[in-house]
Amino acid sequence: MQELAILKIGGQVLDDPDRLAAALDYFAGLSGLAILVHGGGKAAGRLSKAMGIEPRMVDGRRLTDAATLEIVTMVYAGGINKQVVAGLQARGCNAIGLSGADGNLIQAHKRIVKDIDYGFAGDIDAVNVDLLLSLLGMGLRPVVCPITHDRAGQLLNTNADTIASRLAVALAPHYRIRLDYCFELPGVLRDFQDPASVIPHLDAAAFAEYRNAGVISGGMIPKLDNAFTALRAGVARIRIGDLAALAEGRATVVELERE
Amino acid sequence: MQELAILKIGGQVLDDPDRLAAALDYFAGLSGLAILVHGGGKAAGRLSKAMGIEPRMVDGRRLTDAATLEIVTMVYAGGINKQVVAGLQARGCNAIGLSGADGNLIQAHKRIVKDIDYGFAGDIDAVNVDLLLSLLGMGLRPVVCPITHDRAGQLLNTNADTIASRLAVALAPHYRIRLDYCFELPGVLRDFQDPASVIPHLDAAAFAEYRNAGVISGGMIPKLDNAFTALRAGVARIRIGDLAALAEGRATVVELERE
Repeated sequence: MQELAILKIGGQVLDDPDRLAAALDYFAGLSGLAILVHGGGKAAGRLSKAMGIEPRMVDGRRLTDAATLEIVTMVYAGGINKQVVAGLQARGCNAIGLSGADGNLIQAHKRIVKDIDYGFAGDIDAVNVDLLLSLLGMGLRPVVCPITHDRAGQLLNTNADTIASRLAVALAPHYRIRLDYCFELPGVLRDFQDPASVIPHLDAAAFAEYRNAGVISGGMIPKLDNAFTALRAGVARIRIGDLAALAEGRATVVELERE
Repeated sequence: MQELAILKIGGQVLDDPDRLAAALDYFAGLSGLAILVHGGGKAAGRLSKAMGIEPRMVDGRRLTDAATLEIVTMVYAGGINKQVVAGLQARGCNAIGLSGADGNLIQAHKRIVKDIDYGFAGDIDAVNVDLLLSLLGMGLRPVVCPITHDRAGQLLNTNADTIASRLAVALAPHYRIRLDYCFELPGVLRDFQDPASVIPHLDAAAFAEYRNAGVISGGMIPKLDNAFTALRAGVARIRIGDLAALAEGRATVVELERE
């Protein structure tokens, strides 16, 4: 089975020109098939502020009202996505930028309102695997931004970690998928204060223990939940770390059971 | 030879939700192969103003400085392009949004400075015909925004009329191209004040006469120059008019020689 690398880069990478350049060097230097998924970063917040739009937060999560959706669409699908694509093209990597609306790549629905209305937040229904197979077959490298659509004309804001894991799962029957989450820390840490405390291998049992003990908490939990879901659905390998840790094999390897 | 429709829609269409919806209905309703090219409209100017960036104009043309380039990239490649793509997807049209950087669709260079430095304005060097043939062959309808790149990492702002005519020329050896420019008037007018004065057929000799007589002037001249260049390069048919005139066959037909 052919290998496919999926690299997700987060806001901390996008917000730092040197880190972004290093991530683009790394991605362009990968051999074989590859997909890049990028998040948002601070540009959308800066633009909102410049335009006098107050961010509305609930439980630490930003609500995507109509004005915010317009801004994140411009920033994620326009500003960031095209800068990343042009940067990859300059490195000889034939990137093609895509939102979930393009070629109906990712169909989603507006998150159902229970206690909290998150606004135009999209939960994914389907990934257009045929489109990805065709583009990859043409030698292109998709660069996916965290904007989806509902196929009824509504664009939606969708978490980039989730997009990366859903793409990985959808493509797992076709390729041996290696999914890497690149973020600001060298890996999943045993001690949040100590970057040297990277957990080298994290399996489902250990995750449950660390979680119960409060060692792993906050934003790392949904990230790891996404990762284990993807592994259960057939994704071959998942790693979490910063670019240097990923490149040098020091990042946390997430696996269902310690091999 | 298979037919391919290229529709260019300008700012006046994009700025009016009803007109835009009608244009998307029309484009989605076309049979066979089709490409949409869109311009900018007033959204970029509004965003610049909101951000306190003064537009710099020379001879009525906007200079694309770095801040303006960032804004037009967000607005054209992000906000407008994805709204158009999602709107077409909602109409059952499998649109895929592209800038010139995506898949190296349109390679350009920063316009050479002679008397005026237009900033990050891109003059087109090459169109990636193979990419368009592949995407069209997949049943996709490319939706192209007026942002190009120099393949060295620099995005560039490029006139959408020119992009439409260059795509038409590049694809003319492969398809019988019907290129329609959709703008705010029902056609090329004999009397600028009188919308009933549409010139039904305009050939190169008549254009030269009208131009010398001052009947055709201003922004219509580069538009028609683009059109005649495309016809000489093998584009089968070119029309200019508003959506109703195009749909009802009342728009100006531009042709090398009156048939």
